[in-house]
Amino acid sequence: MAARHPQAFVPGAWMQAQLARVEQALDAALGADDPADLGEAMRYAVQGGGKRLRPLLVLAACEAVGGHEEAALRAACAVELIHAYSLVHDDMPCMDNDVLRRGKPTVHVRFGEAQALLAGDALQALAFELLTPEEGVASPVQATLCRLLARAAGARGMAGGQAIDLAHVGRPMAESELRRMHALKTGALLQASVEMGAACGMPPEPARAALSRYGAAIGLAFQVVDDILDVTQDSATLGKTAGKDAAADKPTYVSLMGLEGARAHAAVLLAEARTQLAASGLGDTRALAALAEMVVHRSH
Amino acid sequence: MAARHPQAFVPGAWMQAQLARVEQALDAALGADDPADLGEAMRYAVQGGGKRLRPLLVLAACEAVGGHEEAALRAACAVELIHAYSLVHDDMPCMDNDVLRRGKPTVHVRFGEAQALLAGDALQALAFELLTPEEGVASPVQATLCRLLARAAGARGMAGGQAIDLAHVGRPMAESELRRMHALKTGALLQASVEMGAACGMPPEPARAALSRYGAAIGLAFQVVDDILDVTQDSATLGKTAGKDAAADKPTYVSLMGLEGARAHAAVLLAEARTQLAASGLGDTRALAALAEMVVHRSH
Repeated sequence: MAARHPQAFVPGAWMQAQLARVEQALDAALGADDPADLGEAMRYAVQGGGKRLRPLLVLAACEAVGGHEEAALRAACAVELIHAYSLVHDDMPCMDNDVLRRGKPTVHVRFGEAQALLAGDALQALAFELLTPEEGVASPVQATLCRLLARAAGARGMAGGQAIDLAHVGRPMAESELRRMHALKTGALLQASVEMGAACGMPPEPARAALSRYGAAIGLAFQVVDDILDVTQDSATLGKTAGKDAAADKPTYVSLMGLEGARAHAAVLLAEARTQLAASGLGDTRALAALAEMVVHRSH
Repeated sequence: MAARHPQAFVPGAWMQAQLARVEQALDAALGADDPADLGEAMRYAVQGGGKRLRPLLVLAACEAVGGHEEAALRAACAVELIHAYSLVHDDMPCMDNDVLRRGKPTVHVRFGEAQALLAGDALQALAFELLTPEEGVASPVQATLCRLLARAAGARGMAGGQAIDLAHVGRPMAESELRRMHALKTGALLQASVEMGAACGMPPEPARAALSRYGAAIGLAFQVVDDILDVTQDSATLGKTAGKDAAADKPTYVSLMGLEGARAHAAVLLAEARTQLAASGLGDTRALAALAEMVVHRSH
């Protein structure tokens, strides 16, 4: 019996198989023939690293609801393209001015600032192009996927969170404001990943809502753990500059709650994610559970 | 009889009425409550000037095919948001480094580079959010509108054209390459405007194809006239720095064909646009015809 979920679910094997699908699909989506090195810059921004957490969340959520697999793979790539573009723009001199990302020179260092700006812009457009193929899943799903992604990426999502971040560098930030900033900056896209996966199927509304709350918990947990790793790991392990937030006097969960407080908070969020999976009433949420574990117990 | 097209079509009155709808819809789309001044920067980027040519093309094409008016108004705004974001990013120091746009300080001058980058990014996301309302026109139309806009904005459209432009500053460019650059950089979004308007209805395929070719002709004509105005008008009339392309040693239709050659080329493209409208077999293409006139005979 070659069921997609064999009796013994092995998280590592599941992830490896899904990652292979995602990398292949991303590779196919990034054309090699785009004008004037733009395609090369886009490919560089997307390839060579990254945990692909967002695509895995899309695929795991789609599996949990028994959704349309091809639509989910497109959605998985689209979310990752949005994530990749945000890193490219975030690293630029006028933003974080970072020269190292996943152990490699950042896109503007490698291709110049103008090309980095354009590559980010084109990656965002490509995300929406991927979601709306001429053939494939029915249009209502396509439209829903675009809606979820656009909201999560925009002013009331990721870009809005970045604006709040920008406005608070070197200034104190209350916990409620920090929470809001991260809910938008990082959380919105992680939550949207789960919601997009769910939208590839037709789960009952309570299940959809529970998955959405799972996504919100994962989104927050991700940032709490990020802040912990920023002070507990070195740059080589992280593949980016460690201790940077503290150096820039940016508020973090660690600066706000202390290291132990942040760790306890991450554990609470993991428990909340598990509770929501149980509450969803869906039959097989093992992949989503494994991803929640990964988010909280990762080392980089 | 209060037909939408009274017997005597008055282009100025038509444009004024449509512009009022577009400005109101853009105003409603740009929330005032977006975080940390991001909404203000987005609003600044979109408001206060601009001919709104792209929205007018969407609305005129929708009228010609008798399409869904509310969907067309959303599409009109979405195209303008993409256009506005491209100007914000184009003006940034790493690109054209322009401090003046429509007679006002550019967004990065007014709000800082980081906020300009984010505002552009959020405007692009907002465009796709506008195209996919929860209620409204049927999903197949929503999905088609997203597809057309994403393609026109991305690496094989506007962003790709900008990359070609970037790669050729100070370097010679053959006419075929110049034509390709502009077909992508400016033409793709203008053509997509027409195609999106047509997609709000269900025109017969030959009519749709003729409108698309009309859009291609208008797109090219727009840039030819832009190049002409760059050398024949002063900065005050243009609302941006005149003579800039020549100063930057950028290839233009004028540098390539001479002023008279460029004027003759614009006239040929206007004739082509009219031919395509006639070939479309659609009953009332007067608004589209008026816009073609406007593109070629404008003074700024």
